[in-house]
Amino acid sequence: MKTRIYNVKILAMAGSMDITEGEVWIDGSRISYAGVPKAGMPKWDREIDGGGNLLMPGFKNAHTHSPMTFLRSYADDLPLQEWLTRQIFPMEAKLTGDDVYWLTRLAIMEYLTSGVTAVFDMYFHQDKVAAAAVDSGFRAVMVSGLNDYISSLEELEESYCTYNDYHELISYCLGFHAEYTTSPRLLTGVAALAEKYQAPVYTHNSETAAEVEQCRERYGMTPTAYLDSLGIYRYGGGGYHCVHMSDEDLDIFARQGLSIVTNPGSNTKLASGIARISEMIGRGINLAVGTDGPASNNCLDMFREMFLVTGLAKLRQQDASAVPAEQVLYMATAGGAKALGLYDCDRIAPGKLADLILIDLQQPNMQPVNNLVKNLVYSGSKQNVILTMVNGVVLYENGEFYIGADRSVIYQKANEIINRMK
Amino acid sequence: MKTRIYNVKILAMAGSMDITEGEVWIDGSRISYAGVPKAGMPKWDREIDGGGNLLMPGFKNAHTHSPMTFLRSYADDLPLQEWLTRQIFPMEAKLTGDDVYWLTRLAIMEYLTSGVTAVFDMYFHQDKVAAAAVDSGFRAVMVSGLNDYISSLEELEESYCTYNDYHELISYCLGFHAEYTTSPRLLTGVAALAEKYQAPVYTHNSETAAEVEQCRERYGMTPTAYLDSLGIYRYGGGGYHCVHMSDEDLDIFARQGLSIVTNPGSNTKLASGIARISEMIGRGINLAVGTDGPASNNCLDMFREMFLVTGLAKLRQQDASAVPAEQVLYMATAGGAKALGLYDCDRIAPGKLADLILIDLQQPNMQPVNNLVKNLVYSGSKQNVILTMVNGVVLYENGEFYIGADRSVIYQKANEIINRMK
Repeated sequence: MKTRIYNVKILAMAGSMDITEGEVWIDGSRISYAGVPKAGMPKWDREIDGGGNLLMPGFKNAHTHSPMTFLRSYADDLPLQEWLTRQIFPMEAKLTGDDVYWLTRLAIMEYLTSGVTAVFDMYFHQDKVAAAAVDSGFRAVMVSGLNDYISSLEELEESYCTYNDYHELISYCLGFHAEYTTSPRLLTGVAALAEKYQAPVYTHNSETAAEVEQCRERYGMTPTAYLDSLGIYRYGGGGYHCVHMSDEDLDIFARQGLSIVTNPGSNTKLASGIARISEMIGRGINLAVGTDGPASNNCLDMFREMFLVTGLAKLRQQDASAVPAEQVLYMATAGGAKALGLYDCDRIAPGKLADLILIDLQQPNMQPVNNLVKNLVYSGSKQNVILTMVNGVVLYENGEFYIGADRSVIYQKANEIINRMK
Repeated sequence: MKTRIYNVKILAMAGSMDITEGEVWIDGSRISYAGVPKAGMPKWDREIDGGGNLLMPGFKNAHTHSPMTFLRSYADDLPLQEWLTRQIFPMEAKLTGDDVYWLTRLAIMEYLTSGVTAVFDMYFHQDKVAAAAVDSGFRAVMVSGLNDYISSLEELEESYCTYNDYHELISYCLGFHAEYTTSPRLLTGVAALAEKYQAPVYTHNSETAAEVEQCRERYGMTPTAYLDSLGIYRYGGGGYHCVHMSDEDLDIFARQGLSIVTNPGSNTKLASGIARISEMIGRGINLAVGTDGPASNNCLDMFREMFLVTGLAKLRQQDASAVPAEQVLYMATAGGAKALGLYDCDRIAPGKLADLILIDLQQPNMQPVNNLVKNLVYSGSKQNVILTMVNGVVLYENGEFYIGADRSVIYQKANEIINRMK
């Protein structure tokens, strides 16, 4: 499949936020040319008139639990512990593999409407998550949610080997749920696997103040220091949330070259706190942005997340200049690609994978055109996403989905699943 | 014009958040029937199949400066004082009346995409704001921005009389910019006008900590206590922002029956702080929600504001159960209608004005359907707005505007205005 997208402004994110005018050629899954119109065009299967709109790399949702769509708006406005133990856990226990498949397909639809072209997904029944992604044509990096109650080291290693050699849209990262749900024996085993495969490791880290306090009581160390002491981060990786981080924790992240995935929507709705984004940036830590799962957010909207990343930093620091829009946009795209290990999905350039989105500038929230990067972060909306392409294939365009299943079937399945459980 | 909207879920907001199925009839500017299908239908000019989606009262954007669209993304990520004095004020000084007209038309387009059916607007060149609203078919309550530098008591009184007898879509409220920009002589004059017309008064109040501190130094009182001591609130009214309010300030608001319009997006982006929403609710104060102007937000999106109202309250109180979604939705609709004095725009019922929106439930962010009110507040997006009707007339439907001007003309004007000034 050879596709040409012409008449576009191009935000290539190739080391700057410069925007040029031109066109992008796609051959199969990869970009073959980006620049001004030129001769020597191949025969196109499709030519898309971009209408003068903005073409850019898709967003990377760097932390989510896709199948949790069934719990959207099921249990909100409750204290955190009640929410988790009385509402979320009992419902999750009822999920079948088939449920996970359909609920993931629903999440993928929502990702596409928000310009997300890849996710970093932690859940169980990962065979079904992978199948849902492949069937939709969507890119997913899966990470293990190993803990004392589900999965095992053997299963983790098997999944790691299986899903890193499964499909071009799928990859797998070593990981576990969190320090507070995972025994030292398992953690030591994860460190051994990291060593064996020279692989990065990701986990939930310091999401709440109570989590950090309890780890200190158990081990006399913060979660970051404790995990680092076990050798978990010998080959990199990083943490999700990272709200309650000490200076020393951040120093460890910087020293080990780890990524932090911030989840401001979830941290806001669950009253977990505000991450220390400026201090992270100051240490040169790679930052990415995630929505967390739809039970705790409740939407999968990277525009809302981007506004919150900078807005909450401004509030926390009482400084309207904190964390400028350019840094946020980088985090939500290229920073995310780095965290996910998707080094070919970070920019628009020949040879890179064609994970692209087209942003409608002919909406009132994008006018007048003073600064498109600020527009994206401060006034952008999923309403502006008119095309989402993954791996060279258009999956969403002008409100229609091209994901190999009818939207009504997916909605029906999702409603059946939650209604069966109620 | 007689319109029937059938096959809809109806969130009437008539004293509850109950949702029923049925249809709504509109005769001219008003609702003539809401309920299950019944006999005795008139001859319709138009029948709209709602597709099983959600019909509800439109959002009221209860504090904005519409013409400031020209400064969207013009000066962001700057310290507050530099932003205001070096970037915003000098640019505003260059505005002509014609500029204000076109910039307001652009803002109205954006309101419509976000399901806003009325605004509470403070700016200058108000003849042009009124003209832009009427020409668009949009409802606007204008409030004076009187201060020591613009306008006068005579002009305020003249505007009050003129615009309350101008057009069915326009009304006018006594007001002034803020305590810190308005002399005691003018404030005393405003109080006299409030007395003369037995009218409510609105103003910016306690947006920043510095503003409150400076007022204490000047008068030994908070802005709220000082304004109350002048008799400003004898006939009601209220305040915009109200971030830094003491218990005593809130007691005054409760005692005088005043409304508070919260502006969480602007307060976040400008690092002003988080309003004490729960304490306001606890005192029974009427609450409304506004975007503030597009220079400080930068978008005019009530969905973002709704999430922030509850999210920031949760963060501030470290309590995930703070300010439930139902309260937020009430604030953004009926609470706003009360603040704006639009008592006929608060619900779906016979005799009420037909300021209505249709919410697309066939988007992934609205599925599965566990709780539509939670969905609206936590996962809703302007992408879900498929129809916006003001005063019985459809102004926005399926992405198209019906506002008596072409979108390209309005965009061109907005870009010309800012480019002329740069």
